[in-house]
Amino acid sequence: MRVAILGQGYVGSIFAIGLERIKRGEIKPYGVPLTNELPIKIEDIEIVASYDVDKNKIGKSVYEVAKNYYDIVPESLKDIKVRKGIHLRSLRNLPIEAEGLDDDLSLEEAINKLVDEWKELKVDVIVNVCTTESFVPFNNKDELIKAIKEDNKERVTATQAYAYAACLYANEVGGACFVNAIPTLIANDPAFLELAKENNLVIFGDDGATGATPLTADVITHLCQRNRYIRYIVQFNIGGNTDFLALTDEERNKSKEYTKSSIVKDILGYEPPHYIKPTGYLEPIGDRKFISMDIEYISFNGAVDELIINGRINDSPALAGLLVDLVRLGKMAIDKKEFGTVYEVNAFYMKNPGPKDKKNIPRIIAYEKLRMWAELKPRWL
Amino acid sequence: MRVAILGQGYVGSIFAIGLERIKRGEIKPYGVPLTNELPIKIEDIEIVASYDVDKNKIGKSVYEVAKNYYDIVPESLKDIKVRKGIHLRSLRNLPIEAEGLDDDLSLEEAINKLVDEWKELKVDVIVNVCTTESFVPFNNKDELIKAIKEDNKERVTATQAYAYAACLYANEVGGACFVNAIPTLIANDPAFLELAKENNLVIFGDDGATGATPLTADVITHLCQRNRYIRYIVQFNIGGNTDFLALTDEERNKSKEYTKSSIVKDILGYEPPHYIKPTGYLEPIGDRKFISMDIEYISFNGAVDELIINGRINDSPALAGLLVDLVRLGKMAIDKKEFGTVYEVNAFYMKNPGPKDKKNIPRIIAYEKLRMWAELKPRWL
Amino acid sequence: MRVAILGQGYVGSIFAIGLERIKRGEIKPYGVPLTNELPIKIEDIEIVASYDVDKNKIGKSVYEVAKNYYDIVPESLKDIKVRKGIHLRSLRNLPIEAEGLDDDLSLEEAINKLVDEWKELKVDVIVNVCTTESFVPFNNKDELIKAIKEDNKERVTATQAYAYAACLYANEVGGACFVNAIPTLIANDPAFLELAKENNLVIFGDDGATGATPLTADVITHLCQRNRYIRYIVQFNIGGNTDFLALTDEERNKSKEYTKSSIVKDILGYEPPHYIKPTGYLEPIGDRKFISMDIEYISFNGAVDELIINGRINDSPALAGLLVDLVRLGKMAIDKKEFGTVYEVNAFYMKNPGPKDKKNIPRIIAYEKLRMWAELKPRWL
Amino acid sequence: MRVAILGQGYVGSIFAIGLERIKRGEIKPYGVPLTNELPIKIEDIEIVASYDVDKNKIGKSVYEVAKNYYDIVPESLKDIKVRKGIHLRSLRNLPIEAEGLDDDLSLEEAINKLVDEWKELKVDVIVNVCTTESFVPFNNKDELIKAIKEDNKERVTATQAYAYAACLYANEVGGACFVNAIPTLIANDPAFLELAKENNLVIFGDDGATGATPLTADVITHLCQRNRYIRYIVQFNIGGNTDFLALTDEERNKSKEYTKSSIVKDILGYEPPHYIKPTGYLEPIGDRKFISMDIEYISFNGAVDELIINGRINDSPALAGLLVDLVRLGKMAIDKKEFGTVYEVNAFYMKNPGPKDKKNIPRIIAYEKLRMWAELKPRWL
Repeated sequence: MRVAILGQGYVGSIFAIGLERIKRGEIKPYGVPLTNELPIKIEDIEIVASYDVDKNKIGKSVYEVAKNYYDIVPESLKDIKVRKGIHLRSLRNLPIEAEGLDDDLSLEEAINKLVDEWKELKVDVIVNVCTTESFVPFNNKDELIKAIKEDNKERVTATQAYAYAACLYANEVGGACFVNAIPTLIANDPAFLELAKENNLVIFGDDGATGATPLTADVITHLCQRNRYIRYIVQFNIGGNTDFLALTDEERNKSKEYTKSSIVKDILGYEPPHYIKPTGYLEPIGDRKFISMDIEYISFNGAVDELIINGRINDSPALAGLLVDLVRLGKMAIDKKEFGTVYEVNAFYMKNPGPKDKKNIPRIIAYEKLRMWAELKPRWL
Repeated sequence: MRVAILGQGYVGSIFAIGLERIKRGEIKPYGVPLTNELPIKIEDIEIVASYDVDKNKIGKSVYEVAKNYYDIVPESLKDIKVRKGIHLRSLRNLPIEAEGLDDDLSLEEAINKLVDEWKELKVDVIVNVCTTESFVPFNNKDELIKAIKEDNKERVTATQAYAYAACLYANEVGGACFVNAIPTLIANDPAFLELAKENNLVIFGDDGATGATPLTADVITHLCQRNRYIRYIVQFNIGGNTDFLALTDEERNKSKEYTKSSIVKDILGYEPPHYIKPTGYLEPIGDRKFISMDIEYISFNGAVDELIINGRINDSPALAGLLVDLVRLGKMAIDKKEFGTVYEVNAFYMKNPGPKDKKNIPRIIAYEKLRMWAELKPRWL
Repeated sequence: MRVAILGQGYVGSIFAIGLERIKRGEIKPYGVPLTNELPIKIEDIEIVASYDVDKNKIGKSVYEVAKNYYDIVPESLKDIKVRKGIHLRSLRNLPIEAEGLDDDLSLEEAINKLVDEWKELKVDVIVNVCTTESFVPFNNKDELIKAIKEDNKERVTATQAYAYAACLYANEVGGACFVNAIPTLIANDPAFLELAKENNLVIFGDDGATGATPLTADVITHLCQRNRYIRYIVQFNIGGNTDFLALTDEERNKSKEYTKSSIVKDILGYEPPHYIKPTGYLEPIGDRKFISMDIEYISFNGAVDELIINGRINDSPALAGLLVDLVRLGKMAIDKKEFGTVYEVNAFYMKNPGPKDKKNIPRIIAYEKLRMWAELKPRWL
Repeated sequence: MRVAILGQGYVGSIFAIGLERIKRGEIKPYGVPLTNELPIKIEDIEIVASYDVDKNKIGKSVYEVAKNYYDIVPESLKDIKVRKGIHLRSLRNLPIEAEGLDDDLSLEEAINKLVDEWKELKVDVIVNVCTTESFVPFNNKDELIKAIKEDNKERVTATQAYAYAACLYANEVGGACFVNAIPTLIANDPAFLELAKENNLVIFGDDGATGATPLTADVITHLCQRNRYIRYIVQFNIGGNTDFLALTDEERNKSKEYTKSSIVKDILGYEPPHYIKPTGYLEPIGDRKFISMDIEYISFNGAVDELIINGRINDSPALAGLLVDLVRLGKMAIDKKEFGTVYEVNAFYMKNPGPKDKKNIPRIIAYEKLRMWAELKPRWL
């Protein structure tokens, strides 16, 4: 199966590196939830294209780019060239010199160019791991189409343009999958889901569930099942990768904050006072972010308990490991013709599982439902 | 429904206090997992008897005893007198002057005395919250009977004697329930399960799942489902109540250590290096124990992550809240004639769920199975 | 000795309550660094006046106001009435209805009114515990005087007006002390120090050293003395009192951030990458703030160590305890005629010790120097 | 200056490696408190001999042995051969095959052999970094001499034999230094101090102050100076190096526990309830031990605060870095003829600073006194 990566940053690079190292038997597939239980094997995944909009990456090989993020990079990544993608305003305010197809082309032309390339490359699954954007969902299919036709570069974000391109592409080749691992609403935007169903596209999204948020979900489920009343939740996190840098931008931060705190209400059924948001950027912390949580709750007879959870979590590998499953599940969904989106997949892998009207459930249960969807035996049910 | 408490210590007292306060509408039933969803309501629970072997408690009212543990004690507890129980060697090495029926009577006589009292009191459910004992399971019914007949006071522990009495009692009244909330193996001892089935006794056990252990179970399930490889687990805990004091005794500590670490292997399928045991006693910490966990695991592409969890958890209320469910579920099991033990109940509420051949499963899933057993709608399945 | 409190909020109330309880022998003077070692005893402190600008407090007794913050309030506080102070823009953006002398009077008139009241009350020490303000220091005495004369209510803050009033008052009575426990620069503003010297005023300031910052100072001193190289420092803190609410205002937050991070450079001699600032407000956390620090440093042979410090610290009592010393030291400084400011006092008690050109030193050493200034034997030197 | 290492384990190896790497300019002298401020430079230190009693190490080069502990080992360490030392019962119960001079020789003979070797090697400073022993101090010089004469191998430990050898050696060459970095009392044993003075030996000791203990000292000093009353202190620590393995032996653990908790009383002046001891051994934690502290204290007006400190600290580099100072200070003390012991040095570098009647003082102050002893300007006094 053939994969295109949109955004050759930290996550995209660790995904490429880890995948090759697993194929060569150098490392075990730790961090890949379904390991090699799926009918499509990890060894079957082939990265065939990579896109970015950083002037310093375009035209280089994935090998060269990945060297910036990790010491050990397999030589096989020398064969994949980083192509020029779409940026729109996605790198605004970041210390990166951006360059995109949309600099010289209209939106429609840029999108058509991508579709042509994907056809040539015979891509199955397109994985979006761009930088977190500030965005407004479309909700209405016609408005989306109109914005593209009118070349409204202020309205459409890079992710929205990519997802639209994926629809056109799926229509032409009879089936494809778009995995949206960033907060921009795609699997939660009815405009995209309607288009996806009409065009034979599978969408997984939104926002890959890594780090503190899914852990928080399982910890509060634990408390909720014992009917312990949560007085408040604090969740700080700080990191030194580009994603944290991007989140110092207030607009981008808001989309993240929403995703992170909706989980709490979905699971508890009430919304305890909480402070949950990406807190800061500090370069030397690097990709191994620091998280700190404080939860106070009331137990039997009014007793007040407290949990303090600290963690050092490698941000990019956490997401990259999920992608190894998601691209394979994407291919399976295409084969099953489950166009639109698949809640069973999103509920485990995504912070904000689409479609829009669906809520977060405890991850530990979502895992079992995912296995059943993937025709694997549940582990404990 | 009518309850007898064995061991009027911290847990037994908080259970009695919290129950009365909920009945009077003074507090909400936080910490009671199934709240008032069950057909038997919290208001239906009546404590009719209490037993202890501390010379300073016997003969006093539960009100007087409970005052040692908590400021606000409802007057209604003045009506329940603490009776003399069985001690055998259960308080050995503890700074408590012990006195038991077995001081003056043979084992059989003492047991018969209890059965007579329970008949008079029309007890439904007997809750065992004695101090953690050093013990040897029987495994064989005949050996258990023989030890009692031969008045072998070195072989039989208080809990084993109580559980045996419960069997005799259940036989006479046609049904009863014994809830074993301490580590002594009862629901995991085939000798007791066989006797229970023959005599119409329901046994729930063993060792109420409070504090760090069930949380650990859910946290490692979280890691396991993402195929993160656990390098090691450290779990310290220290408290200042009698239970921690008892655990400074090496023999008792071993039974606890076993319970706590078996969960890890049951869920992961492999046994990572771990140090999990009650670590120490420090009086001024009181009932609000301090726990500290350190977990290091390997994520995708060999990345090493770390979680450090600290907590301040009120030990006794955590267990007391579970008891409010367990006594009601016990009555339901009697009515359903599910004699022996009920794994669906044990799997959620107990650290070491019986019967012996059954393993721990993630608590978040056990909760849903419990609800189904109790004829409640699962919340997320 | 006679004290006036400016700002009858959490700190002011706990100060008044704790002081009375110590006098009555109800509690020990924990949290008061120099306890009763000083020649002026805790019993000698008398609160004679209180000022606030919250409409709901003015005219009430300190007893009534203090009841909002703590259950046990000594009756003796019924005798002190909360008077109307100066607000200028100090409560802007806060959910408090403000009312001040400056609503109806010019700055000069308001200041004169205060001076008259203090003369009548025979105040020795004036303690400023107003809400954190956004401010611009004057640096130049003439500009300060000009702004007051011209009634420039946009330029002068409440604290600056109070400090100016203290100068006038000290001049009239021959000596007084102004303790500035909030971040507004007073002891660090040459304009005020010049005025203070000319008018027989002692100023202590700025910003009482409570909570995470002085602890951080001592922890990094510990690392610095072992020549461990700090890779970065993270310090989050969140609370639910009015001060944290005030700090959600970006302008106020900046003055706090400056104070907090200057300590790091002063002690280390270099400025490691750091993220140190009041992070958020969450009402149910109340006065017992949650702090979380992460420090990574390099030890011998390139080894990377990590310290994670979490704390739950009662914010207001920490400062209130320091005030019990500061007012007595203030009286001592008046008696010694050390007008202007006293670095030895500020270095231990203040986050940003004046005068301006003086740096932070490790608190553990500042403590010994303070003792020597106060004519007490050092403990370890 | 010329150094002999007793115990070529983790600490001895990191010391040798780090020293060579600093000399070559590969790394900075982080973790060396006095860096290159001393008149004797780091470049002047030469390791000329190494001793061990592990059969697998004796006869190998330090290079070969150090490879077990660290990847990067300078080639220059190929020139130093590990010699056979004295073991007595020091490796009892450890999974190491021990072999010592004392297997074939009497104590006197073994000691004389060492003295001869040191004379040939022209050793200045002997550094003892053996495994923690179970021991009984002598207190009386004559008893010590008698035990050696009588070849009482049950009474004398390896460290005591080495220290005795150092006395004989110092006497012969006119001056030497013995640095005791393990808990065996040497600088705190009057028997050894008397001998040292008579024989021109400088002793530094006992037990190098690394890890959680000196940090605890500074943190409780911080609390003490604010007159906060400590309700209790918990300090857990667990590691995976040989030292932690050795401490699972109850006897050895007791000597460590004593050292660790005496600091608390020395500084506070009272002894708060505490649980401070090496808690466990877990191999995969390796040398980067996990520490967890919980301190609850009372602040002003009865407020209860809590600090929880977690750390990951590389054990061996922490001590190795101190040794780089200690050997140079040892040479300085010889030159100054300060025979016996030097409290100013011990107070900063040792957990249990000798002589016996001297107490712990806050490290931050000890540092300044150390600088003055070493004729360096204090940093903040």
